Amino acid sequence: MQISSMPLGYNHPAMLKALADPVNQKIIANRPALGVFPGKDWPDKLRKILLHKEIAPPGLSHITTMMCGSCSNENAFKTIFIWYAEKQRGDAPFTREEMESCMMNQTPGTPRFSILSFKGAFHGRTLGSLSTTHSKYIHKIDIPGFDWPTASFPVYKYPLDENIRENQQEDNRCLAEVEELFEKYKTEKKIPVAGVIVEPIQAEGGDNHASPEFFQELQRITKKVLHDAALLIDEVQTGGGPTGKMWCHEHFNLESPPDVVTFSKKMQLGGYYHVKSLKPKQSYRIFNTWMGDPSKMILLEAILETIRKENLLHRVTTVGDYMLKQLTSLQNEFSTMINSIRGRGTFIAFNCSSPELRDTIIKKLLSKGIQTGGCGTATIRLRPALTFTEHHANIFLDTLRSILKQ
Amino acid sequence: MQISSMPLGYNHPAMLKALADPVNQKIIANRPALGVFPGKDWPDKLRKILLHKEIAPPGLSHITTMMCGSCSNENAFKTIFIWYAEKQRGDAPFTREEMESCMMNQTPGTPRFSILSFKGAFHGRTLGSLSTTHSKYIHKIDIPGFDWPTASFPVYKYPLDENIRENQQEDNRCLAEVEELFEKYKTEKKIPVAGVIVEPIQAEGGDNHASPEFFQELQRITKKVLHDAALLIDEVQTGGGPTGKMWCHEHFNLESPPDVVTFSKKMQLGGYYHVKSLKPKQSYRIFNTWMGDPSKMILLEAILETIRKENLLHRVTTVGDYMLKQLTSLQNEFSTMINSIRGRGTFIAFNCSSPELRDTIIKKLLSKGIQTGGCGTATIRLRPALTFTEHHANIFLDTLRSILKQ
Repeated sequence: MQISSMPLGYNHPAMLKALADPVNQKIIANRPALGVFPGKDWPDKLRKILLHKEIAPPGLSHITTMMCGSCSNENAFKTIFIWYAEKQRGDAPFTREEMESCMMNQTPGTPRFSILSFKGAFHGRTLGSLSTTHSKYIHKIDIPGFDWPTASFPVYKYPLDENIRENQQEDNRCLAEVEELFEKYKTEKKIPVAGVIVEPIQAEGGDNHASPEFFQELQRITKKVLHDAALLIDEVQTGGGPTGKMWCHEHFNLESPPDVVTFSKKMQLGGYYHVKSLKPKQSYRIFNTWMGDPSKMILLEAILETIRKENLLHRVTTVGDYMLKQLTSLQNEFSTMINSIRGRGTFIAFNCSSPELRDTIIKKLLSKGIQTGGCGTATIRLRPALTFTEHHANIFLDTLRSILKQ
Repeated sequence: MQISSMPLGYNHPAMLKALADPVNQKIIANRPALGVFPGKDWPDKLRKILLHKEIAPPGLSHITTMMCGSCSNENAFKTIFIWYAEKQRGDAPFTREEMESCMMNQTPGTPRFSILSFKGAFHGRTLGSLSTTHSKYIHKIDIPGFDWPTASFPVYKYPLDENIRENQQEDNRCLAEVEELFEKYKTEKKIPVAGVIVEPIQAEGGDNHASPEFFQELQRITKKVLHDAALLIDEVQTGGGPTGKMWCHEHFNLESPPDVVTFSKKMQLGGYYHVKSLKPKQSYRIFNTWMGDPSKMILLEAILETIRKENLLHRVTTVGDYMLKQLTSLQNEFSTMINSIRGRGTFIAFNCSSPELRDTIIKKLLSKGIQTGGCGTATIRLRPALTFTEHHANIFLDTLRSILKQ
C-alpha cells in the first residue's frame, strides 16, 4: 500500500468519481497559495472535512495543512518553539537584539531549544525532523543535526500478559530517562526541551508498542510545571484509521488531548492539529507558498466519506482481531520461527527469529503475490488498506503457514 | 500568480485537457511511493520531461524529485553533505563509531558541516533551509538554527551603466567576505563549508540582482581546491521560464555547470538537478515516502509542451524588454517616486521612495484589479504568468502611470 499511504487500495470508485468531476479538475489546475489566496470555500472545507467531529482528534480545534510528514513535523516543531519562547517573553515585544541576532542564526533571536525524541523513532528526513529520527544509521550518517535529547523507548517482552511486571519496569526505566534528559538539557546543556515527539507505535523502528500507561505518564512529565513543554504525537503512519480508530492515541485514554498531532500518508496531504494555545500571535510565522494542496483534499473528502459510509473503522477492528488471533495460533505452531505478535486494528507486526529468516519470508510471500514490509531488525509489518477483509486475511494466513511449513 | 507558482495563468486548456484524461485520473488516484514502487513508465517520464535537453539545465544529468522548494533545498543540502563526507572518507567504509554516534546526533557520525548563504536570501522555512534564509526576522525569530556562515549579497546602485565601478567594488567586497567565511568556519569555528547556496535573483529579499561576473567568481571560490565545496543555485522562484530562459543562471555564462539546481513553484513539483559526482553511493540516503508526485508531472508535461509550442520563452523576453523600456521612461517621468528598475524577462521589480509609498501603490493597483507583490523593504515585484503579453503590459503601465500622476 505504497508505504502505508493508500487507505482504500487501488482504483477506488469514490476517488475516481471525485477526479472525474470537471469542477475538481479546475481546482487541481488552479492550485492556490493557501496561506494568502485560498479559495472562498477553503475554510469551510477545513471545517467540514479535517475538523469534522468524527475526524479531528478529540479536543484539538486548530489545523494547519502541509504537504508531507516531514514538513508537518518541522512546522509543528516551529509552532512549539514559538509558543515556548512566547511564554518566556510574556507580553513583552521582540527586542531589537532578538530581531537582529536571529538574522545571523545567533542567540538570543535564534534560541537554543530542543525537541526530545526516542531511540528507534522515525519522524522524517529534513534536517529538523531528522534530528528526532533514530531508526537506522543510513538515514543520518554524514548529515549535520541538532544536539537534542534522545530517550529510550520501551522494549517489551511478549506475550504481554506473561511479562506484566518486567514491562512495567521497562516503562519506568524509559520514563526516568525522559525526566533525566529534561533536567540535563535544561541545567547542564542549556538547551531546554520545548517539546516531546513520539509515535503511538514506532513504525519504521520495528512496530514497537508502548502501554497506554507509558503515554499517560509521558504526558504528565511533559506538562508538569517544572518542564511545561508540549506533547506532539506523530500519527503520520498510524493516523487515518489503520488501528481501528482515526488516531491511534485515542486508544491511550490520555488525561487531556496531546498539544499537537501530525499526519500525512493515508490523509493524502500533510498537516497538524493543535490546541488553541499553540496558535502563534503574529501572521506569517508558519507559512510557505502552498500550505498544503486542495487537490489532496478532494481525494481526502472521498476517502473519509467512504470510511464513514462503509463503516471501515469497525471492519479494521474486526479483521484486525481475527488476524491477531490467527497469527497467535500460527506462532504457537511455529514458535521457533515467529514471535512477539502485536498490533492494533490491522496495524500488525511480528518478529522472526533472525533478520535472514525475516528477509526469506518476505521474499517468499512476494513470490506468492503478497507484499509485506520489513522494519526494525527482524520484524515483518502488515499495512493493508482499510478495505482489507477476512477473505484477504485468510489468503495471507494460508500462504504464511505454507511458507513456515516449508 | 499564487506567489509566482502559476506558469500559464488560470484554467489553461492544456492543463484542463490533461486532467480530463481518465488515464491521468487513475495516476492521480493511485499515487505511488516513487522511491520504491514507481510506475513502469516513471523513469521514461523523468527522461522525456524533466531531463529533456531543452528543459534540464545544461550539464546536469541527474534528477531527484520532491514536493516543494524547502524539501528540495533540504535534500540538496543532504546530498552535498554526503558527497563532502565521502570525499574525506575516501574509499573507507563507515566506522562503527560513525554509525553509532550519528544515532544520537553526535560527532563523528553527525558531522559539523555548514552551508554558506547570503544576507537577504530566502531558501525555505524548514529548520535546515531556514538556517540559510535571511530575508525577514519574522520568519526566523524563536526558531533554533544551525551556526552557518552568512555573507553579504551585492547591493547595487542603479542605473547600472552609471555605477559600473562602484558595483564592481561591491561585488569584490561580498566575494572577499565569502573567502573570509570559508576560512573562518574551517579554521576557527571547525564547521567547514560543504556547499554554497545562492539565488540567481534574490526574490523574497527584494529582487536583488548580482552580475554574471559575481556568480562566475563565486563559483571559482567555491570550487577551488582549498575549499572544494559544491555550488547550489536555488531556482525555486526564477526557474521555469520567467527570466526568458528555463533557468536564470543560464544568463551567467558560468565556466562549468553549477553542482545542484533546485526548483519548485512553476515546475509544479519540487526537486533538484545535480551533477553525476553528487549521486550518493548507497541507496536510501535520500529518500522519503512519496519522493515527488506523478500528478504534478501530468501538469508539468502539459505546461512544458505549451511553453515549447507557443514559444513562450521568446515571448517572455520580448515582453520583458518592452516592460523594462517603458518602466524606465516612467522612472524618468516620476524619478522622485520610483527608481532602480531591474529585471530579466518579465521577472521585473522597481523600488519606491519609501515603504509607505510602496504599500500605497500596491493597494491602488489592487483596487484597479492588478495584483502585484511587495518584497524587500520598498520594492514592488512583478510576477506575471509566461502568457503575459504586450497588451497586458500596457494595461499595467497605463494604470501605474495614472496612479503615480495622482
